[in-house]
Amino acid sequence: MISKNEIKYIQTLYHKKTRDEENVFVAEGPKLAEELLHSNFTVRKIYALSKWIEKHPQIAATEITPEELEKISRLDTPNQTLAIIEKKKQDSNNVSFTKQITLALDGIQDPGNFGTIIRIADWFGIRQVIASEDCVDCYNPKTVQSTMGSIFRVNIFYTNLEKCLSESNVPVFGALLNGENVQHATPAEEGILVIGNESKGIRENILPYITQSLTIPAFGQAESLNAAVATGIILSHLVQR
Amino acid sequence: MISKNEIKYIQTLYHKKTRDEENVFVAEGPKLAEELLHSNFTVRKIYALSKWIEKHPQIAATEITPEELEKISRLDTPNQTLAIIEKKKQDSNNVSFTKQITLALDGIQDPGNFGTIIRIADWFGIRQVIASEDCVDCYNPKTVQSTMGSIFRVNIFYTNLEKCLSESNVPVFGALLNGENVQHATPAEEGILVIGNESKGIRENILPYITQSLTIPAFGQAESLNAAVATGIILSHLVQR
Repeated sequence: MISKNEIKYIQTLYHKKTRDEENVFVAEGPKLAEELLHSNFTVRKIYALSKWIEKHPQIAATEITPEELEKISRLDTPNQTLAIIEKKKQDSNNVSFTKQITLALDGIQDPGNFGTIIRIADWFGIRQVIASEDCVDCYNPKTVQSTMGSIFRVNIFYTNLEKCLSESNVPVFGALLNGENVQHATPAEEGILVIGNESKGIRENILPYITQSLTIPAFGQAESLNAAVATGIILSHLVQR
Repeated sequence: MISKNEIKYIQTLYHKKTRDEENVFVAEGPKLAEELLHSNFTVRKIYALSKWIEKHPQIAATEITPEELEKISRLDTPNQTLAIIEKKKQDSNNVSFTKQITLALDGIQDPGNFGTIIRIADWFGIRQVIASEDCVDCYNPKTVQSTMGSIFRVNIFYTNLEKCLSESNVPVFGALLNGENVQHATPAEEGILVIGNESKGIRENILPYITQSLTIPAFGQAESLNAAVATGIILSHLVQR
């Protein structure tokens, strides 16, 4: 049972302003619910259909009808559960770059791209992502869903990227034209990989901090690759055992 | 100027059935228009706003207003042009697999994924893609837009994948669990790379034809990678100079 006020409240969480004020976000579906329950995120509330609740008797979920789920969901096909989760406090002053690969996102605008990049980062064992302040909100519902649960494992810090890079003392890799062929790059154990905006690439003010340019060689005529695909390709050459 | 009947006609082209009957498809935006005009596809009609027409006086485009474009467009933000294009006849009996890498798609359902995969194929110089008959239509408007123009360069054949693979005599690579680490794979000059469905992977009946299993090693805890991202990663290890 869900009240009209709760329905209204959840609908307001699809606006960044309200998410920021309330310090919560929404994640939908059994896959994300599962990952959430194994994470150290604090759940405010889980709404679920009876069939999900029957399978998870140990979880204190609020039972709702498919019609009610339809009202609060943002998915084309609402899928059993919707959770309201507390955001984590991320203090970018505590970011350490040593002995790990960090991803730095410079102006990634598309929520789906951002989420897919977080999922890729998680796949390659990357524990932290720093994002320029003009990147899309990582708690945007489309971003959260695209991470497929990786949002609960990867730490995301919004920060002044230029300042952050200027204070780092590890190699900074950047996906650029005319860099070293990434297929011949030496795997790295430490460093920051900068991924630029979908259409404009890496910003001018960030370029001076890049210590190693990497290029994905083009064998055909496509002008560019999707930012998430490029991230996956570069990481698969940089992160090796 | 566009008539009411033309507007209705274009709207019906967003259904596969009508596209098949009429043997045409729709591509939107200046980027795709540009790529189209450099391709060997036959253009039935281009509708465009005056500002695009002024820049392309040599093209016989039909001028329409932003309001008219809004009515015929499927984009969230309609973008200057919309073209109606003749499909190409693709005869899968003429496919040759020698001396090139071919991509084989087994049940790719998501239009965006399919289009992104075509764009990746084009980036890596792949000239042909064979797709199982239950893959999403490559002329779906979302697919066409996601290819970013690569649809005009990559030949796509819908076919009985099992029959096609059984008759091929080149190596068949497949993205599977527990295969060879793709990071250590030897680059290939000839062969077919099979990419499976987004959630179910490669079908049982296709597995016997795979001569070399490849795996993208997982360093973290994400359960899977997006099909397009996986395609990009595998190709970047397989296709090298």
